[in-house]
Amino acid sequence: MAMARKASELETEGHRILHLEVGQPLTGLPEQARVAVVEQLNLPLGYTNAAGTQPLRNRIAERYENVEPERVVVVAGASAGFTLAFLTMFEPGDRVGVIEPGYPCYRNALIALGLTPVSIPVGPDSRWVPTTAHLDLAGDLDGLVLASPSNPTGTVLGAGDLRELTTTCRERNITVIADEIYHGIVNGPPAPRVLDHYQDAFVINSFSKYFSMTGWRVGWAVVPDGVVDTVERLQQNLYICAPHVSQVAALAALDASEELERHVARYRTNQSLLIGGLAAAGITEIAPADGAFYVYAHVPHLTTDLGLDSLELCQRWLHELGVAATSGSDFDLARGHEYVRFSYAGSGDDVDEACEMLAGWTP
Amino acid sequence: MAMARKASELETEGHRILHLEVGQPLTGLPEQARVAVVEQLNLPLGYTNAAGTQPLRNRIAERYENVEPERVVVVAGASAGFTLAFLTMFEPGDRVGVIEPGYPCYRNALIALGLTPVSIPVGPDSRWVPTTAHLDLAGDLDGLVLASPSNPTGTVLGAGDLRELTTTCRERNITVIADEIYHGIVNGPPAPRVLDHYQDAFVINSFSKYFSMTGWRVGWAVVPDGVVDTVERLQQNLYICAPHVSQVAALAALDASEELERHVARYRTNQSLLIGGLAAAGITEIAPADGAFYVYAHVPHLTTDLGLDSLELCQRWLHELGVAATSGSDFDLARGHEYVRFSYAGSGDDVDEACEMLAGWTP
Repeated sequence: MAMARKASELETEGHRILHLEVGQPLTGLPEQARVAVVEQLNLPLGYTNAAGTQPLRNRIAERYENVEPERVVVVAGASAGFTLAFLTMFEPGDRVGVIEPGYPCYRNALIALGLTPVSIPVGPDSRWVPTTAHLDLAGDLDGLVLASPSNPTGTVLGAGDLRELTTTCRERNITVIADEIYHGIVNGPPAPRVLDHYQDAFVINSFSKYFSMTGWRVGWAVVPDGVVDTVERLQQNLYICAPHVSQVAALAALDASEELERHVARYRTNQSLLIGGLAAAGITEIAPADGAFYVYAHVPHLTTDLGLDSLELCQRWLHELGVAATSGSDFDLARGHEYVRFSYAGSGDDVDEACEMLAGWTP
Repeated sequence: MAMARKASELETEGHRILHLEVGQPLTGLPEQARVAVVEQLNLPLGYTNAAGTQPLRNRIAERYENVEPERVVVVAGASAGFTLAFLTMFEPGDRVGVIEPGYPCYRNALIALGLTPVSIPVGPDSRWVPTTAHLDLAGDLDGLVLASPSNPTGTVLGAGDLRELTTTCRERNITVIADEIYHGIVNGPPAPRVLDHYQDAFVINSFSKYFSMTGWRVGWAVVPDGVVDTVERLQQNLYICAPHVSQVAALAALDASEELERHVARYRTNQSLLIGGLAAAGITEIAPADGAFYVYAHVPHLTTDLGLDSLELCQRWLHELGVAATSGSDFDLARGHEYVRFSYAGSGDDVDEACEMLAGWTP
């Protein structure tokens, strides 16, 4: 975040910056959603029910097998979904596994809410996904946050691995909080969904990424049967409701798949450009980039071997090349200093040009 | 909330409901804000900085004496402001005073976040506002939530009382969380502001009430100097940012005072209608209705004397008269069963008609 802010400061000062650090689509609201918002702006868009507008809950429920609308809670972005999940499913002091590398806010939110994050490091030996063996090493756990596709790796948990892992969690009474916010942005077949294997998971999804609506702060949770009332009460007391206008936009965005699939096609093209360009720049050791819009690269030859950590490397790239990328230290406290996350959510031209700069960089 | 939902269900079934239960303006976004939103809908309204867009923070800071924009954090509604305040200013188990009657979410949010709410009952003997004497009765406190104008009473804490109370809090190291979301909606002179007396308060305000933007989930906090970084980090991890589109609307709404003052004038007219109409219906024992859009009435002759509590009374009014009002039990666990909150945020005609129905009601 500090990096993104610095990049944007340099840009304001007139420097050209190639944005490979962004964690969001550069595209805006889908056109159908824009039209729906304009149409409804004359209505008093007051509070909605805590769990969201009924049409939106209904449409979201239809996206799943065997999910009644009552289990769907519209939330103020996935961030709100995690807070609701953590407060609903855990007691103070509970130990909740977080995969490293992973989205840093899981850890920070758990700590802020009085819970204990437990690091579960994964790496190339398990294709960067957690397995039962990883859980064995983590000690007693009350919960596990599971993201697929993952940020920063983009790696998808396959159906077999997901089934095995959720079976283990069920046997050990480990509550699964599933982050599925990058679903829809994949290169191959759709990412397997936790609910197809384990109905007791607390699932969080978002209109931010696939639906290109980050700033609108709207997402959804599918919550286990027994906690619907608790989640609604917490939502009422901590949020009142997700933004009404964003719920209007979200409902229309569900019908915008033609436009949204064009974004996904562009991400795929950009990914090829990025992986090819990085390889030409000597950066080849990457996690399986199955989805999301990130490539997570191991770059010891540009960090440890040169006496740099990845934060220093990213700062030098930003200042010397105008290339913004994200240090792995944001995602992995122990090993991130040798890793960099590149995003290809932006323009293909930027990706191309950035890779050329990296290839020509002299440390 | 259950009452509001029931009222809206009856309405859907075709019953005419007079809405004296609503906690929000029935008007929508100010026209200038609507225009601003339409103009910017073609931009990719992605994440903003955690603390909000700079123009909005600047303009909010200008509303205060001696507040730098750095201390202003744009939040996803006052609800988010309270969560940020509670997590920033308190440690688990801390004792935080909440005035009764008061907004029930303070208590519920404190409990959800591992803090201990301490009830501080106020009543007619102190004009329904807390005093140092009330704090003396509450035992050791780490914090105090102070709302003026208050929901449900509408009572404003005068400058003298506010000065005395904040001086006591400073001396006793009691952190003041000030809820000023009803500022701007007053009958007399502006409500005194905590920051004019005590710069270390954590102040929360909102675009929901005066600015008529409840469903947009945007407000602001003015935070004490030493905690700016903590609040920004918490915001990043728990919310990312307030909705971008709502920040666009909020900035424009700051220039809509002509339209917004017409709403305030209407609230004043409605208040006269309501207080007069209630008196004609025999309901005369009310808290000083200085602001907000509520009248909080003591109705023992309609509750205890008839063997009813106020929730049963409100249910009967809803079903027998189509008049929706809110039981005091939502705001005061100990004494609320003899109280009812009437809102005049809606239409004057509804207020008139509802009072006539109440006057003609036979228990």
